[in-house]
Amino acid sequence: MIILHTIAEVRQYVHTHRMQGKTIGLVPTMGYLHEGHLSLVRQAKEQTDIAIMSIFVNPLQFGPNEDFDSYPRDLERDSQLAASAGIDAIFAPSVDTMYPAGNGKSLTHVDVEVVTDTLCGAARPGHFRGVSTVVSKLFNIVLPDKAFFGLKDAQQVVVIQQMVRDLDIPVEIVPCAIVREPDGLAMSSRNVFLNDDQRSQALVLSRSLQMAAERVQQGERDAVALAAAVRATIEEQPLADIDYVQIVSMRDLSPLHTLDQPALLALAVRFGKTRLIDNIVLHVHR
Amino acid sequence: MIILHTIAEVRQYVHTHRMQGKTIGLVPTMGYLHEGHLSLVRQAKEQTDIAIMSIFVNPLQFGPNEDFDSYPRDLERDSQLAASAGIDAIFAPSVDTMYPAGNGKSLTHVDVEVVTDTLCGAARPGHFRGVSTVVSKLFNIVLPDKAFFGLKDAQQVVVIQQMVRDLDIPVEIVPCAIVREPDGLAMSSRNVFLNDDQRSQALVLSRSLQMAAERVQQGERDAVALAAAVRATIEEQPLADIDYVQIVSMRDLSPLHTLDQPALLALAVRFGKTRLIDNIVLHVHR
Repeated sequence: MIILHTIAEVRQYVHTHRMQGKTIGLVPTMGYLHEGHLSLVRQAKEQTDIAIMSIFVNPLQFGPNEDFDSYPRDLERDSQLAASAGIDAIFAPSVDTMYPAGNGKSLTHVDVEVVTDTLCGAARPGHFRGVSTVVSKLFNIVLPDKAFFGLKDAQQVVVIQQMVRDLDIPVEIVPCAIVREPDGLAMSSRNVFLNDDQRSQALVLSRSLQMAAERVQQGERDAVALAAAVRATIEEQPLADIDYVQIVSMRDLSPLHTLDQPALLALAVRFGKTRLIDNIVLHVHR
Repeated sequence: MIILHTIAEVRQYVHTHRMQGKTIGLVPTMGYLHEGHLSLVRQAKEQTDIAIMSIFVNPLQFGPNEDFDSYPRDLERDSQLAASAGIDAIFAPSVDTMYPAGNGKSLTHVDVEVVTDTLCGAARPGHFRGVSTVVSKLFNIVLPDKAFFGLKDAQQVVVIQQMVRDLDIPVEIVPCAIVREPDGLAMSSRNVFLNDDQRSQALVLSRSLQMAAERVQQGERDAVALAAAVRATIEEQPLADIDYVQIVSMRDLSPLHTLDQPALLALAVRFGKTRLIDNIVLHVHR
């Protein structure tokens, strides 16, 4: 396993392996790895010859009052974990390497419309512009055959897929299932910020999603009522501060009133200063 | 010479030549070729093994009241001219091939800031967003080693170079000198729209640029006075309707008051419905 810090090193590394006919898989992350990330690495190793993980806390996707500075970072620990999962190389650039103009800013942005207007896009203006811009850059640097993204950030997957289609980027996006703790909490680098009470009350997220999936199985088709039920369940936890609970079309993330197509039930809830997201795909068997 | 219409055909064509170790040059155009375009082809053939020209009148870079519908098109004539200059392949996609969502629209855009605020960017809102978006797509489709752009669209060259740097696009941009008619008029596909009087009065553009260059050689350093002199010269022609005459920094296109660095004197002038652009780089020897 090799750690690369500059864009030139990555290009050289990729070029060498390409010349040998190897396929390249990219796992873009912000580091502070957990089992969710490692499952992406394992899928990359299954589907491509060389798996490269980028570890970069991207200032462009954080709002001015968000947790860019406090976002957890530990490259030493991350490289051990990634190596244990079989990663071949880590690209860990500095902010100045990615944004040489300084201040973590770029004059050029990639903007995806419509699918960024809802869910986390509505709550975090500019967030997805930062995501699509940095992912464009990573794609241009690594030129991967496939890129692996976790479905916990379901909207991110939809946004990146839209960008790849619209800009004809020659990469296949592989969405990967959410990985959860044994008690159901979706894995997140931000989980470390939860104290015991918050951690325990945060279980309501996966529990309420599960409850919703069961109601759909039992025949519920009213998306508005279902979202309201999820919201009510979460509100029973005194430390939970709901950002959004929404049921949207899987296709374009437009709001759904009736469950007549594959739907995404997505939520974002704060526990103290920590904002957690989770979601479930609701399959309707007609 | 082969004409390709679909993205898959282009990818296959490029892949085949890449496998043979060939380098790829891209000449993006909107067709209706003239000597300026053909000089780009010749430089592409000198610097790369395989030269591909895209011919696509890109709706995204035309404003609602601009000349998208009337922009001249003649693929038959273009392919003969391009072949005579040595082009290997032409990529001539339909609007629906490039924008499959329909209506020539895209949910994803590439936006370059600051260097698009001035000159043609100020006069044509959204124009450079359309240019950078379609050029991104062409780069992703062709993956050229080098791309060749004419300096007549000097701002376009600056915008594309900024985008390539900011997004780490693995391509070298090769700016190529303006090609002029024997009487000095810069080659343009839009020149065919000029009637005899307009055509003759339009010579004031290159003449006034030449006059400005001579004044700088004679020691003129006042950019404001120089631009005013160019403007006054153009205004002597009754059919000339000035859009802008500006002297800006070559580096970031910011306005210059004093000629203390490499500068671009750029202008856009309408003759009837036809908007012509021209420019000259002012070299200051200190």
